[in-house]
Amino acid sequence: MNWGTIDKYAKSLIKEAGHKIRVSFFNTIDVDTKADANDLVTNIDKAIEQFFISRIQSDFPNHFVLGEEGFGDDIRSLDGVIWLLDPIDGTMNFVHQKRNFAISLGIYCDGVGMLGYIYDVMNDDFYHAAKGEGAYYNDEKLPMLEVTPLSEAIIGVNASWVAPNRRIENEPIADMVHKCRGTRSYGSAAMELAYVSSGRIDAYLSLRLSPWDIAGGMVIAEEVGAIGTNLKGEKPNLLNQDTFIVARPGLHDEILRNHIRLK
Amino acid sequence: MNWGTIDKYAKSLIKEAGHKIRVSFFNTIDVDTKADANDLVTNIDKAIEQFFISRIQSDFPNHFVLGEEGFGDDIRSLDGVIWLLDPIDGTMNFVHQKRNFAISLGIYCDGVGMLGYIYDVMNDDFYHAAKGEGAYYNDEKLPMLEVTPLSEAIIGVNASWVAPNRRIENEPIADMVHKCRGTRSYGSAAMELAYVSSGRIDAYLSLRLSPWDIAGGMVIAEEVGAIGTNLKGEKPNLLNQDTFIVARPGLHDEILRNHIRLK
Repeated sequence: MNWGTIDKYAKSLIKEAGHKIRVSFFNTIDVDTKADANDLVTNIDKAIEQFFISRIQSDFPNHFVLGEEGFGDDIRSLDGVIWLLDPIDGTMNFVHQKRNFAISLGIYCDGVGMLGYIYDVMNDDFYHAAKGEGAYYNDEKLPMLEVTPLSEAIIGVNASWVAPNRRIENEPIADMVHKCRGTRSYGSAAMELAYVSSGRIDAYLSLRLSPWDIAGGMVIAEEVGAIGTNLKGEKPNLLNQDTFIVARPGLHDEILRNHIRLK
Repeated sequence: MNWGTIDKYAKSLIKEAGHKIRVSFFNTIDVDTKADANDLVTNIDKAIEQFFISRIQSDFPNHFVLGEEGFGDDIRSLDGVIWLLDPIDGTMNFVHQKRNFAISLGIYCDGVGMLGYIYDVMNDDFYHAAKGEGAYYNDEKLPMLEVTPLSEAIIGVNASWVAPNRRIENEPIADMVHKCRGTRSYGSAAMELAYVSSGRIDAYLSLRLSPWDIAGGMVIAEEVGAIGTNLKGEKPNLLNQDTFIVARPGLHDEILRNHIRLK
């Protein structure tokens, strides 16, 4: 497999998709809901996923695609080369804000993340990594992450996980919120992964993410030494929805040990 | 008073200050703490406030300045012309992220907001308004805000106000978090006010803000019909720290009535 060629191809495909998304704002966007009333999808999410899939199927007929909108392959195992794609991560932001969303793509070979991309379309900010070759923010190589204590950390965590919920004890999370330097929530898992990898926040956690939300970001995060697992501390799930945390080394362990109690 | 002249002057001063902030990243930034360990201040916050004050004092010797860093006047009443300035709103973002902070400035005459500015320095995004003349995002006039129900609203609220805290009952807030479409937290009150005014989020609330955090944003918000008050529903306090909410019409009332119970 010539990963350098695939890398160049994927970057150019993502930039082209970004252009299509920016142009889409000239027209009316149709908004629909999926699993629940707040799970939005638009005609643009679907069109962008179809654009990726038709290109990948034609140029890499032996590769598989797992896409958020379901136009890709029915993936049951991580064997072979799989492109894990979220055409628009942060659809609610896309609809309400016309910004703060990203294209997220991870390319995995037999379950190992080889290439990862997060493209903040409206800022034209590109985070990318190839396994073993470091991670980049545009042309700038991202430094390895250093240890930060919770008291100096900014944590990406949505208010809904601090409110009482079905998945997690909320008192230890509330305690984390009080002990950290501050919390943020941006509404795009991919962008929050990019923010952790570039040191803008120190950890990000969510109680419900899908493989396409984290696949690209995890390749980038690993290249700068961030630790990403589910909230049991296990390897992230690339086949099913699961909990998720990514954090600087040290902080990952501190949060999991002291502040996460799954129900 | 020629407000048109003051408006042009203030805009140009803010742009010059923004340039100084961008240049400051070439050098080391000294970080200090204020009231508590997470209340950060830098040499740049101080230098930018002093830059504003020296210019305003020299060019408008009869005006007063109330600045976050305390180099301005000791303001006890809202009489006369007062410039309410936060040289860097979102200092934690400035330090950790080198983005997502804003210069916030409101110019008030006898307590009435005449001119308001929020400048997202790193994105070069300028939100501005003159009383009675509408609000602008760069050169684009912002439309009047329409009513949005809570179920379709994105609320700017930090996780720390959903965790148990001294100021507010957290159960009704947690209930709001579950009932709204989503929550966000960006770590800059000025930027969140700008986001409400431009319809990117639908409400923003905080349990502790200072006059300089909201003065500029309130002038902008009022021009698009957003309602801003403290959490008792009273006019925002421009002399002291207080609670704060700004929201679309309708939503403001719905949140205050159903989800806010001050301790």
